[in-house]
Amino acid sequence: MGFLLVADIGGTNARFGLVEQAPNTSKPNYTSAQQITLRCANYPDMGSMIKACCAEFKIDMPEFACLAIAGPIEHGFAQMTNLDWKFNINELRDQLGMKTLHVINDFAALAYAVPFLSAEETKTLYSADSDPEAPICVMGPGTGFGMALLVPENGSWKIIPTEGGHASFAPTTEKELAIKSYLLKEQSHVSVENILSGIGLVHLYRALASIAGVEAQNYSPADVSTKGLANEDAICREAVITFCNTLGAVAGDKAVSTGARGGVVIGGGITPKLMSILPETNFEERYKNKGPMRGYVSDISIKVIVNDKAALVGSAAWLIHNTPALKPVLV
Amino acid sequence: MGFLLVADIGGTNARFGLVEQAPNTSKPNYTSAQQITLRCANYPDMGSMIKACCAEFKIDMPEFACLAIAGPIEHGFAQMTNLDWKFNINELRDQLGMKTLHVINDFAALAYAVPFLSAEETKTLYSADSDPEAPICVMGPGTGFGMALLVPENGSWKIIPTEGGHASFAPTTEKELAIKSYLLKEQSHVSVENILSGIGLVHLYRALASIAGVEAQNYSPADVSTKGLANEDAICREAVITFCNTLGAVAGDKAVSTGARGGVVIGGGITPKLMSILPETNFEERYKNKGPMRGYVSDISIKVIVNDKAALVGSAAWLIHNTPALKPVLV
Repeated sequence: MGFLLVADIGGTNARFGLVEQAPNTSKPNYTSAQQITLRCANYPDMGSMIKACCAEFKIDMPEFACLAIAGPIEHGFAQMTNLDWKFNINELRDQLGMKTLHVINDFAALAYAVPFLSAEETKTLYSADSDPEAPICVMGPGTGFGMALLVPENGSWKIIPTEGGHASFAPTTEKELAIKSYLLKEQSHVSVENILSGIGLVHLYRALASIAGVEAQNYSPADVSTKGLANEDAICREAVITFCNTLGAVAGDKAVSTGARGGVVIGGGITPKLMSILPETNFEERYKNKGPMRGYVSDISIKVIVNDKAALVGSAAWLIHNTPALKPVLV
Repeated sequence: MGFLLVADIGGTNARFGLVEQAPNTSKPNYTSAQQITLRCANYPDMGSMIKACCAEFKIDMPEFACLAIAGPIEHGFAQMTNLDWKFNINELRDQLGMKTLHVINDFAALAYAVPFLSAEETKTLYSADSDPEAPICVMGPGTGFGMALLVPENGSWKIIPTEGGHASFAPTTEKELAIKSYLLKEQSHVSVENILSGIGLVHLYRALASIAGVEAQNYSPADVSTKGLANEDAICREAVITFCNTLGAVAGDKAVSTGARGGVVIGGGITPKLMSILPETNFEERYKNKGPMRGYVSDISIKVIVNDKAALVGSAAWLIHNTPALKPVLV
């Protein structure tokens, strides 16, 4: 049967993986042994990038593929939120000569991976006895802020992709109110993603510099996080701490909004880098600070996905479970 | 088989209904012909109120009942959010001598009613072609702010109760930032429900009076809404308009957070009274003001439930569908 092509395509980088699938297997393989990462900005569109990927892998175009992308999929069209790429999925499949092409939201792919992740692939940030019959909310900051729900359904899971990163940012302190006020002068909608993402770190830094009356440097997201974690720059430090506090508040807000008593799982590229500083911040108190629902959120655990290839695992699982020709033979 | 007892129990009032169920029927009846309303504050606990209800109805304790309550249900316990009532569901069932007692969240009941509501029982606030395969988000202000999701599942619906009213309030204008700042001086968490509820109207009024440097009157929620709608008091008017704008913003936030491309349905007692003023406010613009997700929310319709007995319909449907002894005989 050959290789399945899976991919995790963010606003900046695209990671591609090849999954070898033996025919008539009873235990499907979700692991891609071969992987490459390409920069999206180097390609004009999705089709060109996939062709370049096959050339790198030195393979013919695979028959079956699943792309996890950062953005919504509606009416057969995929829209990359932080890139100017929009494409019709069936047209791309035909153009590439594939039999099956699935395109799913990147956090839907992460959510689909959650039941297949081993203990070493997650770390517990907050421990509680979650309800196995309730939904799990998968969310987190990366280039953007992704979110999806995992809803139990007849012993399996149904995935609900969401765009919860685009809900309005809710400040909780006077300083955060001032940050939102600063950013509202630049745009009419200041979202969770405008704070909790790579560029969100820069927004926080610029706003906090302005509030402090300090001239902002032209820092990248990596500059802010590196200087903040190393405590080399007071404003960067404050930006990183505000980021962590807001992550806790948002995790609690999304948990109550989605009835996610099955647990909160944080994905995306940024949080694993903040594991050392999170316990020093108000992350946990902000998570629980939900008035009469303090007890409700206190019963919901928070885990962080620390395997940065989890979306590839979810894409492979999705492709195999949703393609009749690939369905495992259950014995 | 006799009567089924259904109820919609809010923080203030409890509406009870009797549903007559013929045995071996193929088309179940979800309508309660007889109804009474009791004030929760007149009773020490749920059991006493249910006994008083049966005395009013002049019936023996029914064998089957479903109570929709404003609050979360966890581990077999029901907790009324805005009342000091907490009870073990099975103990209450045994104490009352019932065969079956279901207790569900009031917005879960409303959500369960949605597929059974006729065209006259809802009004369209914003029209769009929603996706029939995507979740529907049911939410709205009353004594509190309730919320539940309706997720399509094999031709039927799965209900996910949530506590989305307890997510943090996200201000969008300088005036709203000032309102949040004012309320944060009184409590560490200012939720959506602290704004979008009966008491929320009073919070808005008090905050706006303080910002305007005007002495606040000792107004009730009804005072604020009546004087605001009649334009008899400028601060009440501003409170009602801020309420409507925030309702639009929150409807959009919850729609993106839950992937509710199947539609937004607004329930609860307050919104039907605001139908005349909503089009004059920024409700719709605030709903759509989600940055790159403007198109996403613009594709999601908003309806308002105008039948104030809808939660009783949902409770009856829930009870009949989830009690084997009551399951309709499908012919």
